[in-house]
Amino acid sequence: MVTELPLDQVRTLLAVVDEGTFDAAAAELHVTPSAVSQRVKALEQRTGRVLLVRTKPVRPTESGAVVVRFARQLARLERDARAELGMGGAEEEPTRVSIAVNADSLATWFLDALTRVPSEPRLCFELRREDEAHTAALLREGLVMAAVTSASEPVAGCSVRLLGRMRYVAAASPGFAERYLAGPLREALPQAPVVTFDRSDTLQDAFLRRLRRSGTGAIRHQIPTSEGFVAAIEAGLGWGMVPEIQAGTQLREGRLISLAPERPVDIPLYWQQWKLDSPALATVAEVVARTAADVLDA
Amino acid sequence: MVTELPLDQVRTLLAVVDEGTFDAAAAELHVTPSAVSQRVKALEQRTGRVLLVRTKPVRPTESGAVVVRFARQLARLERDARAELGMGGAEEEPTRVSIAVNADSLATWFLDALTRVPSEPRLCFELRREDEAHTAALLREGLVMAAVTSASEPVAGCSVRLLGRMRYVAAASPGFAERYLAGPLREALPQAPVVTFDRSDTLQDAFLRRLRRSGTGAIRHQIPTSEGFVAAIEAGLGWGMVPEIQAGTQLREGRLISLAPERPVDIPLYWQQWKLDSPALATVAEVVARTAADVLDA
Repeated sequence: MVTELPLDQVRTLLAVVDEGTFDAAAAELHVTPSAVSQRVKALEQRTGRVLLVRTKPVRPTESGAVVVRFARQLARLERDARAELGMGGAEEEPTRVSIAVNADSLATWFLDALTRVPSEPRLCFELRREDEAHTAALLREGLVMAAVTSASEPVAGCSVRLLGRMRYVAAASPGFAERYLAGPLREALPQAPVVTFDRSDTLQDAFLRRLRRSGTGAIRHQIPTSEGFVAAIEAGLGWGMVPEIQAGTQLREGRLISLAPERPVDIPLYWQQWKLDSPALATVAEVVARTAADVLDA
Repeated sequence: MVTELPLDQVRTLLAVVDEGTFDAAAAELHVTPSAVSQRVKALEQRTGRVLLVRTKPVRPTESGAVVVRFARQLARLERDARAELGMGGAEEEPTRVSIAVNADSLATWFLDALTRVPSEPRLCFELRREDEAHTAALLREGLVMAAVTSASEPVAGCSVRLLGRMRYVAAASPGFAERYLAGPLREALPQAPVVTFDRSDTLQDAFLRRLRRSGTGAIRHQIPTSEGFVAAIEAGLGWGMVPEIQAGTQLREGRLISLAPERPVDIPLYWQQWKLDSPALATVAEVVARTAADVLDA
Protein backbone atom coordinates (compact mmCIF):
# COMPACT_ATOMS: atom_id res chain seq x y z
CA MET A 1 0.00 0.00 0.00
CA VAL A 2 1.37 3.40 -0.93
CA THR A 3 -0.74 5.39 1.51
CA GLU A 4 1.07 5.41 4.82
CA LEU A 5 -0.64 4.02 7.91
CA PRO A 6 -0.24 6.52 10.78
CA LEU A 7 1.23 4.39 13.55
CA ASP A 8 -0.59 6.10 16.43
CA GLN A 9 -3.87 5.25 14.71
CA VAL A 10 -2.71 1.67 14.14
CA ARG A 11 -1.76 1.31 17.82
CA THR A 12 -5.08 2.80 18.86
CA LEU A 13 -6.98 0.26 16.78
CA LEU A 14 -4.99 -2.53 18.46
CA ALA A 15 -5.78 -1.15 21.92
CA VAL A 16 -9.50 -1.03 21.09
CA VAL A 17 -9.48 -4.65 19.89
CA ASP A 18 -7.45 -5.84 22.89
CA GLU A 19 -9.45 -3.91 25.49
CA GLY A 20 -12.82 -4.54 23.85
CA THR A 21 -14.30 -1.05 24.12
CA PHE A 22 -13.37 2.50 23.15
CA ASP A 23 -13.58 3.57 26.80
CA ALA A 24 -11.21 0.86 28.02
CA ALA A 25 -8.76 1.61 25.19
CA ALA A 26 -8.88 5.31 26.11
CA ALA A 27 -8.01 4.46 29.73
CA GLU A 28 -5.16 2.22 28.58
CA LEU A 29 -3.74 4.89 26.23
CA HIS A 30 -4.38 7.79 28.64
CA VAL A 31 -6.44 9.74 26.09
CA THR A 32 -10.13 10.59 25.91
CA PRO A 33 -12.64 8.14 24.40
CA SER A 34 -13.44 10.72 21.72
CA ALA A 35 -9.75 10.84 20.71
CA VAL A 36 -9.82 7.06 20.36
CA SER A 37 -12.96 7.22 18.27
CA GLN A 38 -11.50 9.96 16.04
CA ARG A 39 -8.29 8.00 15.39
CA VAL A 40 -10.19 4.86 14.45
CA LYS A 41 -12.45 6.86 12.12
CA ALA A 42 -9.43 8.56 10.56
CA LEU A 43 -7.82 5.18 9.95
CA GLU A 44 -11.01 3.87 8.41
CA GLN A 45 -11.18 6.87 6.09
CA ARG A 46 -7.55 6.48 5.11
CA THR A 47 -7.85 2.76 4.37
CA GLY A 48 -11.29 3.20 2.84
CA ARG A 49 -12.52 0.21 4.86
CA VAL A 50 -14.67 -0.41 7.91
CA LEU A 51 -12.17 -1.84 10.40
CA LEU A 52 -14.32 -2.54 13.46
CA VAL A 53 -17.72 -4.05 14.08
CA ARG A 54 -19.13 -1.85 16.86
CA THR A 55 -20.36 -4.69 19.06
CA LYS A 56 -19.56 -5.19 22.76
CA PRO A 57 -16.77 -6.19 22.78
CA VAL A 58 -15.80 -4.73 19.40
CA ARG A 59 -14.55 -7.16 16.74
CA PRO A 60 -12.19 -6.41 13.86
CA THR A 61 -13.61 -6.86 10.37
CA GLU A 62 -11.53 -8.85 7.85
CA SER A 63 -9.74 -5.65 6.89
CA GLY A 64 -9.45 -4.69 10.56
CA ALA A 65 -7.78 -8.02 11.28
CA VAL A 66 -5.07 -7.23 8.74
CA VAL A 67 -4.32 -3.93 10.45
CA VAL A 68 -4.40 -5.57 13.90
CA ARG A 69 -1.88 -8.18 12.81
CA PHE A 70 0.30 -5.44 11.38
CA ALA A 71 0.07 -3.59 14.73
CA ARG A 72 1.12 -6.68 16.68
CA GLN A 73 4.02 -7.40 14.36
CA LEU A 74 5.09 -3.80 14.70
CA ALA A 75 5.02 -4.08 18.51
CA ARG A 76 7.02 -7.27 18.32
CA LEU A 77 9.70 -5.80 16.03
CA GLU A 78 9.98 -2.79 18.28
CA ARG A 79 10.43 -4.98 21.36
CA ASP A 80 13.07 -7.12 19.60
CA ALA A 81 14.94 -4.00 18.49
CA ARG A 82 14.82 -2.52 22.00
CA ALA A 83 16.12 -5.80 23.44
CA GLU A 84 19.00 -5.92 20.91
CA LEU A 85 19.91 -2.31 21.66
CA GLY A 86 19.90 -3.15 25.37
CA MET A 87 17.43 -0.36 25.94
CA GLY A 88 15.77 0.18 29.29
CA GLY A 89 12.77 -1.93 30.16
CA ALA A 90 13.48 -4.52 27.54
CA GLU A 91 15.31 -6.92 29.83
CA GLU A 92 12.63 -6.99 32.55
CA GLU A 93 9.98 -7.70 29.96
CA PRO A 94 10.32 -11.23 28.61
CA THR A 95 9.33 -11.91 25.02
CA ARG A 96 5.88 -13.44 24.67
CA VAL A 97 5.54 -16.27 22.18
CA SER A 98 1.91 -17.16 21.55
CA ILE A 99 1.20 -20.45 19.79
CA ALA A 100 -1.96 -22.37 18.97
CA VAL A 101 -1.35 -26.11 19.36
CA ASN A 102 -3.66 -28.95 18.38
CA ALA A 103 -4.85 -30.92 21.41
CA ASP A 104 -3.10 -34.21 20.61
CA SER A 105 0.28 -32.53 20.13
CA LEU A 106 -0.19 -30.68 23.41
CA ALA A 107 -0.97 -34.00 25.12
CA THR A 108 2.07 -35.77 23.68
CA TRP A 109 5.24 -34.11 22.36
CA PHE A 110 4.76 -30.34 22.40
CA LEU A 111 5.64 -29.62 26.04
CA ASP A 112 8.89 -31.58 25.56
CA ALA A 113 9.73 -29.16 22.78
CA LEU A 114 9.14 -26.17 25.06
CA THR A 115 11.43 -27.52 27.76
CA ARG A 116 14.18 -27.82 25.13
CA VAL A 117 14.04 -24.11 24.30
CA PRO A 118 17.18 -22.44 25.73
CA SER A 119 16.39 -20.50 28.93
CA GLU A 120 18.04 -17.35 27.53
CA PRO A 121 16.60 -15.09 26.13
CA ARG A 122 13.74 -15.31 28.61
CA LEU A 123 10.48 -16.26 26.93
CA CYS A 124 6.87 -16.49 28.06
CA PHE A 125 4.87 -19.17 26.32
CA GLU A 126 1.22 -18.45 25.72
CA LEU A 127 -0.34 -21.60 24.38
CA ARG A 128 -3.84 -21.90 23.04
CA ARG A 129 -5.52 -25.15 22.33
CA GLU A 130 -6.05 -25.23 18.62
CA ASP A 131 -9.59 -25.31 17.43
CA GLU A 132 -9.41 -25.98 13.71
CA ALA A 133 -12.23 -23.58 13.06
CA HIS A 134 -10.55 -20.69 14.86
CA THR A 135 -6.82 -21.12 14.37
CA ALA A 136 -6.82 -19.36 11.02
CA ALA A 137 -8.64 -16.43 12.63
CA LEU A 138 -6.19 -16.37 15.56
CA LEU A 139 -3.25 -16.21 13.12
CA ARG A 140 -4.95 -13.65 10.91
CA GLU A 141 -5.74 -11.35 13.82
CA GLY A 142 -2.26 -11.88 15.20
CA LEU A 143 -3.53 -13.33 18.51
CA VAL A 144 -1.07 -16.15 17.97
CA MET A 145 2.24 -15.89 16.12
CA ALA A 146 2.36 -19.54 15.14
CA ALA A 147 0.32 -22.72 15.15
CA VAL A 148 0.80 -26.48 15.17
CA THR A 149 -2.11 -27.55 13.03
CA SER A 150 -3.33 -30.13 10.56
CA ALA A 151 -4.33 -27.29 8.23
CA SER A 152 -1.86 -27.23 5.33
CA GLU A 153 -3.37 -24.18 3.64
CA PRO A 154 -1.23 -21.16 4.60
CA VAL A 155 -3.09 -18.39 6.38
CA ALA A 156 -2.55 -14.99 4.68
CA GLY A 157 0.77 -13.55 5.86
CA CYS A 158 2.05 -16.89 7.18
CA SER A 159 4.60 -19.45 6.06
CA VAL A 160 4.01 -23.20 6.42
CA ARG A 161 6.27 -26.19 6.94
CA LEU A 162 5.53 -29.87 7.46
CA LEU A 163 6.48 -31.10 10.94
CA GLY A 164 5.70 -34.79 10.42
CA ARG A 165 2.83 -37.20 10.63
CA MET A 166 0.98 -38.35 13.73
CA ARG A 167 -0.13 -41.95 13.53
CA TYR A 168 -3.56 -42.95 14.85
CA VAL A 169 -4.76 -46.52 15.40
CA ALA A 170 -8.27 -47.80 16.08
CA ALA A 171 -8.32 -48.99 19.69
CA ALA A 172 -10.67 -50.35 22.33
CA SER A 173 -10.45 -51.94 25.77
CA PRO A 174 -10.30 -55.77 25.90
CA GLY A 175 -13.70 -55.90 27.66
CA PHE A 176 -15.27 -53.65 25.06
CA ALA A 177 -13.81 -55.69 22.18
CA GLU A 178 -15.19 -58.88 23.69
CA ARG A 179 -18.67 -57.40 24.15
CA TYR A 180 -19.10 -55.45 20.91
CA LEU A 181 -16.49 -56.61 18.40
CA ALA A 182 -16.83 -60.38 18.35
CA GLY A 183 -17.65 -60.68 14.61
CA PRO A 184 -15.65 -59.37 11.62
CA LEU A 185 -14.50 -55.82 12.30
CA ARG A 186 -16.21 -54.24 9.30
CA GLU A 187 -19.54 -55.66 10.41
CA ALA A 188 -19.20 -55.03 14.15
CA LEU A 189 -17.44 -51.66 14.31
CA PRO A 190 -20.09 -49.48 12.63
CA GLN A 191 -22.66 -50.72 15.21
CA ALA A 192 -20.49 -50.30 18.30
CA PRO A 193 -20.43 -47.24 20.58
CA VAL A 194 -17.72 -44.81 19.54
CA VAL A 195 -15.82 -42.07 21.36
CA THR A 196 -15.11 -38.86 19.44
CA PHE A 197 -13.23 -35.75 20.48
CA ASP A 198 -15.82 -33.18 19.44
CA ARG A 199 -18.32 -32.51 16.69
CA SER A 200 -15.66 -31.76 14.10
CA ASP A 201 -13.69 -34.96 14.83
CA THR A 202 -14.06 -37.08 11.69
CA LEU A 203 -11.17 -39.46 12.28
CA GLN A 204 -13.39 -42.35 13.37
CA ASP A 205 -15.60 -41.89 10.30
CA ALA A 206 -12.51 -41.73 8.09
CA PHE A 207 -11.38 -45.08 9.50
CA LEU A 208 -14.77 -46.67 8.85
CA ARG A 209 -14.66 -45.41 5.27
CA ARG A 210 -11.37 -47.27 4.89
CA LEU A 211 -13.22 -50.41 5.93
CA ARG A 212 -15.74 -49.42 3.24
CA ARG A 213 -18.37 -48.67 5.84
CA SER A 214 -20.01 -45.32 6.40
CA GLY A 215 -21.43 -43.84 9.58
CA THR A 216 -20.78 -44.82 13.17
CA GLY A 217 -23.28 -46.43 15.53
CA ALA A 218 -26.05 -44.65 17.35
CA ILE A 219 -23.96 -44.18 20.50
CA ARG A 220 -21.40 -41.49 19.87
CA HIS A 221 -19.79 -39.97 22.95
CA GLN A 222 -17.90 -36.68 22.86
CA ILE A 223 -14.93 -36.30 25.21
CA PRO A 224 -13.15 -33.06 24.34
CA THR A 225 -9.71 -33.54 25.94
CA SER A 226 -6.97 -35.78 24.51
CA GLU A 227 -6.24 -37.43 27.84
CA GLY A 228 -9.95 -37.87 28.63
CA PHE A 229 -10.54 -39.31 25.17
CA VAL A 230 -7.98 -42.09 25.69
CA ALA A 231 -9.15 -42.65 29.28
CA ALA A 232 -12.76 -43.01 28.12
CA ILE A 233 -11.74 -45.66 25.57
CA GLU A 234 -9.71 -47.47 28.24
CA ALA A 235 -12.77 -47.35 30.52
CA GLY A 236 -14.80 -49.10 27.81
CA LEU A 237 -17.17 -46.28 26.78
CA GLY A 238 -16.43 -46.92 23.11
CA TRP A 239 -13.76 -47.46 20.46
CA GLY A 240 -11.81 -44.59 18.91
CA MET A 241 -8.69 -43.53 17.01
CA VAL A 242 -5.84 -42.91 19.45
CA PRO A 243 -2.41 -41.43 18.71
CA GLU A 244 0.11 -44.26 18.86
CA ILE A 245 2.63 -42.12 20.77
CA GLN A 246 -0.01 -41.21 23.36
CA ALA A 247 -1.44 -44.68 24.00
CA GLY A 248 1.84 -46.59 23.65
CA THR A 249 1.91 -47.77 27.26
CA GLN A 250 -1.74 -48.84 27.30
CA LEU A 251 -1.28 -50.73 24.01
CA ARG A 252 1.87 -52.50 25.23
CA GLU A 253 0.32 -53.44 28.57
CA GLY A 254 -2.83 -54.74 26.90
CA ARG A 255 -5.14 -52.18 28.54
CA LEU A 256 -5.98 -51.12 24.99
CA ILE A 257 -6.14 -53.35 21.94
CA SER A 258 -5.17 -52.10 18.50
CA LEU A 259 -8.14 -53.24 16.39
CA ALA A 260 -6.47 -53.05 12.99
CA PRO A 261 -2.72 -52.48 13.41
CA GLU A 262 -2.26 -52.85 9.65
CA ARG A 263 -4.55 -49.88 8.98
CA PRO A 264 -3.18 -46.82 10.76
CA VAL A 265 -4.32 -43.32 9.81
CA ASP A 266 -1.52 -40.76 9.46
CA ILE A 267 -2.35 -37.08 9.98
CA PRO A 268 0.24 -34.57 8.76
CA LEU A 269 0.98 -31.69 11.13
CA TYR A 270 2.19 -28.30 10.00
CA TRP A 271 3.89 -25.32 11.59
CA GLN A 272 2.34 -22.08 10.42
CA GLN A 273 3.92 -18.82 11.51
CA TRP A 274 3.93 -15.14 10.75
CA LYS A 275 6.42 -14.12 8.08
CA LEU A 276 8.40 -12.09 10.56
CA ASP A 277 12.07 -11.88 11.39
CA SER A 278 11.80 -12.42 15.16
CA PRO A 279 14.75 -14.22 16.78
CA ALA A 280 12.56 -15.57 19.59
CA LEU A 281 10.06 -17.05 17.17
CA ALA A 282 12.86 -18.48 15.00
CA THR A 283 14.39 -20.24 18.05
CA VAL A 284 11.08 -21.78 19.05
CA ALA A 285 10.29 -22.82 15.47
CA GLU A 286 13.66 -24.55 15.23
CA VAL A 287 13.26 -26.49 18.50
CA VAL A 288 9.68 -27.45 17.64
CA ALA A 289 10.73 -28.77 14.23
CA ARG A 290 13.60 -30.75 15.76
CA THR A 291 11.43 -32.29 18.49
CA ALA A 292 8.71 -33.11 15.96
CA ALA A 293 11.30 -34.83 13.75
CA ASP A 294 12.30 -37.00 16.74
CA VAL A 295 8.81 -38.13 17.70
CA LEU A 296 6.61 -37.94 14.60
CA ASP A 297 6.76 -40.09 11.48
CA ALA A 298 8.44 -38.45 8.49
CA MET B 1 -46.75 -16.34 28.61
CA VAL B 2 -50.39 -16.47 27.59
CA THR B 3 -49.82 -16.24 23.86
CA GLU B 4 -49.12 -19.72 22.57
CA LEU B 5 -45.89 -20.49 20.77
CA PRO B 6 -46.66 -22.42 17.57
CA LEU B 7 -44.47 -25.49 17.84
CA ASP B 8 -43.62 -25.75 14.15
CA GLN B 9 -42.24 -22.22 14.30
CA VAL B 10 -40.29 -23.04 17.46
CA ARG B 11 -38.78 -26.16 15.82
CA THR B 12 -37.93 -24.12 12.73
CA LEU B 13 -36.07 -21.57 14.82
CA LEU B 14 -34.10 -24.40 16.44
CA ALA B 15 -33.20 -25.85 13.03
CA VAL B 16 -31.96 -22.46 11.81
CA VAL B 17 -29.76 -22.02 14.90
CA ASP B 18 -28.41 -25.59 14.68
CA GLU B 19 -27.80 -25.53 10.92
CA GLY B 20 -26.51 -21.96 10.86
CA THR B 21 -28.39 -20.68 7.80
CA PHE B 22 -31.98 -20.49 6.54
CA ASP B 23 -31.03 -22.55 3.48
CA ALA B 24 -29.49 -25.37 5.51
CA ALA B 25 -32.46 -25.39 7.89
CA ALA B 26 -34.81 -25.57 4.88
CA ALA B 27 -32.92 -28.60 3.55
CA GLU B 28 -33.03 -30.24 6.99
CA LEU B 29 -36.78 -29.64 7.37
CA HIS B 30 -37.62 -30.44 3.73
CA VAL B 31 -39.33 -27.08 3.14
CA THR B 32 -38.36 -24.04 1.07
CA PRO B 33 -36.03 -21.36 2.48
CA SER B 34 -38.84 -18.83 2.16
CA ALA B 35 -41.09 -21.02 4.34
CA VAL B 36 -38.32 -21.07 6.96
CA SER B 37 -37.97 -17.31 6.76
CA GLN B 38 -41.73 -16.79 7.07
CA ARG B 39 -42.00 -19.03 10.13
CA VAL B 40 -39.16 -17.23 11.91
CA LYS B 41 -40.71 -13.85 11.07
CA ALA B 42 -44.11 -15.04 12.30
CA LEU B 43 -42.54 -16.18 15.58
CA GLU B 44 -40.77 -12.84 15.95
CA GLN B 45 -44.03 -11.00 15.42
CA ARG B 46 -45.86 -13.21 17.89
CA THR B 47 -43.20 -12.83 20.61
CA GLY B 48 -42.65 -9.17 19.75
CA ARG B 49 -38.88 -9.76 19.86
CA VAL B 50 -36.05 -10.08 17.38
CA LEU B 51 -34.98 -13.71 17.84
CA LEU B 52 -32.07 -14.06 15.42
CA VAL B 53 -29.08 -11.97 14.50
CA ARG B 54 -28.84 -12.47 10.72
CA THR B 55 -25.09 -13.16 10.61
CA LYS B 56 -23.44 -16.14 8.96
CA PRO B 57 -23.93 -18.40 10.84
CA VAL B 58 -27.02 -16.88 12.45
CA ARG B 59 -26.95 -16.37 16.23
CA PRO B 60 -29.91 -16.29 18.59
CA THR B 61 -30.50 -13.02 20.43
CA GLU B 62 -31.09 -13.18 24.21
CA SER B 63 -34.80 -13.68 23.56
CA GLY B 64 -33.99 -16.14 20.78
CA ALA B 65 -31.88 -18.17 23.21
CA VAL B 66 -34.89 -18.56 25.50
CA VAL B 67 -36.97 -19.95 22.64
CA VAL B 68 -34.13 -22.21 21.50
CA ARG B 69 -33.78 -23.69 24.98
CA PHE B 70 -37.52 -24.21 25.09
CA ALA B 71 -37.30 -26.01 21.71
CA ARG B 72 -34.54 -28.30 22.94
CA GLN B 73 -36.38 -29.12 26.15
CA LEU B 74 -39.46 -29.86 24.09
CA ALA B 75 -37.49 -32.25 21.86
CA ARG B 76 -36.06 -33.93 24.92
CA LEU B 77 -39.44 -34.42 26.61
CA GLU B 78 -40.85 -35.82 23.39
CA ARG B 79 -37.98 -38.29 23.08
CA ASP B 80 -38.33 -39.38 26.73
CA ALA B 81 -42.08 -39.88 26.26
CA ARG B 82 -41.54 -41.89 23.05
CA ALA B 83 -38.99 -44.08 24.84
CA GLU B 84 -41.35 -44.70 27.78
CA LEU B 85 -44.17 -45.59 25.40
CA GLY B 86 -41.84 -48.00 23.59
CA MET B 87 -42.60 -46.19 20.35
CA GLY B 88 -40.76 -47.00 17.14
CA GLY B 89 -37.38 -45.42 16.63
CA ALA B 90 -36.91 -44.60 20.27
CA GLU B 91 -34.81 -47.64 21.09
CA GLU B 92 -32.33 -47.17 18.25
CA GLU B 93 -31.84 -43.58 19.22
CA PRO B 94 -29.95 -43.30 22.51
CA THR B 95 -30.61 -40.33 24.77
CA ARG B 96 -28.00 -37.60 24.42
CA VAL B 97 -26.81 -36.00 27.62
CA SER B 98 -24.75 -32.88 26.97
CA ILE B 99 -22.71 -31.50 29.86
CA ALA B 100 -20.15 -28.71 30.16
CA VAL B 101 -17.39 -29.74 32.56
CA ASN B 102 -14.60 -27.59 33.95
CA ALA B 103 -11.18 -28.76 32.76
CA ASP B 104 -9.82 -29.87 36.14
CA SER B 105 -12.86 -32.03 36.88
CA LEU B 106 -12.60 -33.59 33.44
CA ALA B 107 -8.93 -34.36 34.11
CA THR B 108 -9.60 -35.92 37.51
CA TRP B 109 -12.91 -37.38 38.71
CA PHE B 110 -15.56 -36.71 36.08
CA LEU B 111 -14.89 -39.65 33.73
CA ASP B 112 -15.08 -41.99 36.73
CA ALA B 113 -18.56 -40.67 37.32
CA LEU B 114 -19.58 -41.41 33.71
CA THR B 115 -18.37 -45.00 33.91
CA ARG B 116 -20.57 -45.47 37.00
CA VAL B 117 -23.73 -44.51 35.09
CA PRO B 118 -25.80 -47.70 34.53
CA SER B 119 -25.49 -48.94 30.93
CA GLU B 120 -29.29 -49.07 30.53
CA PRO B 121 -30.97 -46.89 29.34
CA ARG B 122 -28.39 -46.27 26.65
CA LEU B 123 -26.94 -42.79 26.85
CA CYS B 124 -24.61 -40.76 24.67
CA PHE B 125 -22.42 -38.35 26.58
CA GLU B 126 -21.59 -35.10 24.85
CA LEU B 127 -19.06 -33.32 27.00
CA ARG B 128 -17.84 -29.79 26.46
CA ARG B 129 -14.89 -28.35 28.21
CA GLU B 130 -16.27 -25.59 30.36
CA ASP B 131 -15.12 -22.12 29.56
CA GLU B 132 -16.39 -19.94 32.40
CA ALA B 133 -17.22 -17.17 29.99
CA HIS B 134 -19.37 -19.38 27.79
CA THR B 135 -20.96 -21.94 30.05
CA ALA B 136 -23.82 -19.67 31.04
CA ALA B 137 -24.52 -19.05 27.35
CA LEU B 138 -24.36 -22.79 26.58
CA LEU B 139 -26.91 -23.49 29.33
CA ARG B 140 -29.11 -20.57 28.32
CA GLU B 141 -29.19 -21.63 24.67
CA GLY B 142 -29.73 -25.22 25.71
CA LEU B 143 -26.56 -26.45 24.00
CA VAL B 144 -25.78 -28.24 27.24
CA MET B 145 -28.31 -29.57 29.71
CA ALA B 146 -26.03 -29.36 32.70
CA ALA B 147 -22.65 -28.06 33.80
CA VAL B 148 -19.96 -28.76 36.40
CA THR B 149 -18.79 -25.26 37.11
CA SER B 150 -17.37 -22.98 39.76
CA ALA B 151 -20.14 -20.48 38.97
CA SER B 152 -22.62 -20.56 41.85
CA GLU B 153 -25.04 -18.04 40.30
CA PRO B 154 -27.89 -20.05 38.76
CA VAL B 155 -28.37 -19.51 35.01
CA ALA B 156 -31.97 -18.57 34.16
CA GLY B 157 -34.07 -21.75 34.00
CA CYS B 158 -31.50 -23.84 35.88
CA SER B 159 -31.20 -25.33 39.35
CA VAL B 160 -27.88 -25.40 41.24
CA ARG B 161 -26.40 -27.72 43.84
CA LEU B 162 -22.99 -27.78 45.51
CA LEU B 163 -20.90 -30.84 44.54
CA GLY B 164 -17.96 -30.23 46.86
CA ARG B 165 -14.70 -28.36 46.97
CA MET B 166 -11.59 -29.00 44.92
CA ARG B 167 -8.41 -28.34 46.85
CA TYR B 168 -5.49 -26.63 45.10
CA VAL B 169 -1.96 -26.37 46.48
CA ALA B 170 0.94 -24.21 45.29
CA ALA B 171 3.50 -26.56 43.75
CA ALA B 172 6.81 -26.55 41.90
CA SER B 173 9.47 -29.04 40.83
CA PRO B 174 12.40 -29.57 43.25
CA GLY B 175 14.84 -28.09 40.70
CA PHE B 176 12.67 -25.03 40.20
CA ALA B 177 12.27 -24.51 43.95
CA GLU B 178 16.03 -24.67 44.41
CA ARG B 179 16.69 -22.17 41.63
CA TYR B 180 13.93 -19.62 42.23
CA LEU B 181 12.52 -20.13 45.72
CA ALA B 182 15.55 -20.18 48.00
CA GLY B 183 14.47 -17.21 50.18
CA PRO B 184 11.22 -16.71 52.11
CA LEU B 185 8.26 -17.72 49.95
CA ARG B 186 6.49 -14.37 50.09
CA GLU B 187 9.61 -12.64 48.78
CA ALA B 188 10.63 -15.21 46.17
CA LEU B 189 7.30 -16.36 44.71
CA PRO B 190 6.10 -13.07 43.21
CA GLN B 191 9.38 -12.84 41.21
CA ALA B 192 9.45 -16.44 39.97
CA PRO B 193 8.10 -17.67 36.62
CA VAL B 194 4.52 -18.87 36.96
CA VAL B 195 2.37 -21.26 34.93
CA THR B 196 -1.28 -20.30 34.42
CA PHE B 197 -4.07 -22.15 32.65
CA ASP B 198 -5.31 -19.29 30.49
CA ARG B 199 -5.94 -15.57 30.68
CA SER B 200 -8.88 -15.91 33.03
CA ASP B 201 -7.00 -18.15 35.48
CA THR B 202 -6.60 -16.05 38.64
CA LEU B 203 -5.83 -18.87 41.08
CA GLN B 204 -2.12 -18.09 41.23
CA ASP B 205 -2.83 -14.41 41.87
CA ALA B 206 -5.36 -15.36 44.56
CA PHE B 207 -2.67 -17.42 46.29
CA LEU B 208 -0.17 -14.53 46.19
CA ARG B 209 -2.81 -12.24 47.69
CA ARG B 210 -3.06 -14.69 50.60
CA LEU B 211 0.67 -14.21 51.09
CA ARG B 212 -0.16 -10.47 51.03
CA ARG B 213 1.62 -10.05 47.72
CA SER B 214 0.04 -8.83 44.51
CA GLY B 215 0.98 -9.63 40.93
CA THR B 216 3.07 -12.49 39.58
CA GLY B 217 6.52 -12.20 38.01
CA ALA B 218 7.25 -11.09 34.48
CA ILE B 219 7.34 -14.63 33.13
CA ARG B 220 3.82 -15.98 32.99
CA HIS B 221 3.29 -19.03 30.81
CA GLN B 222 -0.14 -20.14 29.63
CA ILE B 223 -0.74 -23.90 29.25
CA PRO B 224 -4.42 -24.43 28.54
CA THR B 225 -4.93 -28.12 29.38
CA SER B 226 -5.09 -29.52 32.93
CA GLU B 227 -2.67 -32.33 32.23
CA GLY B 228 -0.28 -30.03 30.34
CA PHE B 229 -0.46 -27.50 33.16
CA VAL B 230 0.74 -30.03 35.74
CA ALA B 231 3.32 -31.47 33.32
CA ALA B 232 4.73 -27.99 32.66
CA ILE B 233 5.15 -27.38 36.39
CA GLU B 234 6.80 -30.79 36.78
CA ALA B 235 9.14 -29.88 33.90
CA GLY B 236 10.19 -26.75 35.80
CA LEU B 237 8.65 -24.04 33.61
CA GLY B 238 7.14 -22.33 36.64
CA TRP B 239 5.15 -22.74 39.84
CA GLY B 240 1.38 -23.01 39.87
CA MET B 241 -1.72 -24.10 41.80
CA VAL B 242 -2.40 -27.79 41.15
CA PRO B 243 -5.45 -29.82 42.22
CA GLU B 244 -4.35 -32.10 45.06
CA ILE B 245 -6.29 -35.05 43.63
CA GLN B 246 -4.62 -34.59 40.23
CA ALA B 247 -1.02 -34.21 41.38
CA GLY B 248 -1.20 -36.67 44.30
CA THR B 249 1.29 -39.12 42.81
CA GLN B 250 3.80 -36.44 41.82
CA LEU B 251 3.55 -34.88 45.30
CA ARG B 252 4.02 -38.21 47.07
CA GLU B 253 6.96 -39.21 44.86
CA GLY B 254 8.64 -35.84 45.32
CA ARG B 255 8.46 -34.90 41.64
CA LEU B 256 6.43 -31.91 42.82
CA ILE B 257 6.86 -30.05 46.10
CA SER B 258 3.91 -28.49 47.89
CA LEU B 259 5.20 -24.98 48.60
CA ALA B 260 2.76 -24.08 51.36
CA PRO B 261 0.80 -27.17 52.42
CA GLU B 262 -0.81 -25.18 55.23
CA ARG B 263 -2.35 -22.74 52.74
CA PRO B 264 -4.53 -24.66 50.29
CA VAL B 265 -7.11 -22.88 48.15
CA ASP B 266 -10.52 -24.58 48.01
CA ILE B 267 -12.72 -23.96 44.97
CA PRO B 268 -16.38 -24.95 45.31
CA LEU B 269 -17.87 -26.78 42.32
CA TYR B 270 -21.54 -26.71 41.43
CA TRP B 271 -23.89 -28.77 39.30
CA GLN B 272 -26.19 -26.57 37.27
CA GLN B 273 -28.91 -28.21 35.22
CA TRP B 274 -32.09 -27.43 33.35
CA LYS B 275 -35.19 -27.55 35.49
CA LEU B 276 -36.55 -30.47 33.52
CA ASP B 277 -38.03 -33.79 34.50
CA SER B 278 -35.77 -36.01 32.37
CA PRO B 279 -35.02 -39.46 33.84
CA ALA B 280 -31.71 -39.68 31.95
CA LEU B 281 -30.52 -36.35 33.30
CA ALA B 282 -31.68 -37.25 36.81
CA THR B 283 -29.67 -40.49 36.71
CA VAL B 284 -26.52 -38.73 35.58
CA ALA B 285 -26.97 -35.94 38.15
CA GLU B 286 -27.31 -38.53 40.90
CA VAL B 287 -24.15 -40.45 39.90
CA VAL B 288 -22.16 -37.23 39.44
CA ALA B 289 -23.18 -36.00 42.90
CA ARG B 290 -22.28 -39.33 44.49
CA THR B 291 -18.87 -39.52 42.77
CA ALA B 292 -18.13 -35.91 43.67
CA ALA B 293 -19.00 -36.65 47.31
CA ASP B 294 -16.45 -39.48 47.26
CA VAL B 295 -13.55 -37.51 45.80
CA LEU B 296 -14.09 -33.85 46.64
CA ASP B 297 -13.90 -32.16 50.03
CA ALA B 298 -17.27 -31.44 51.62
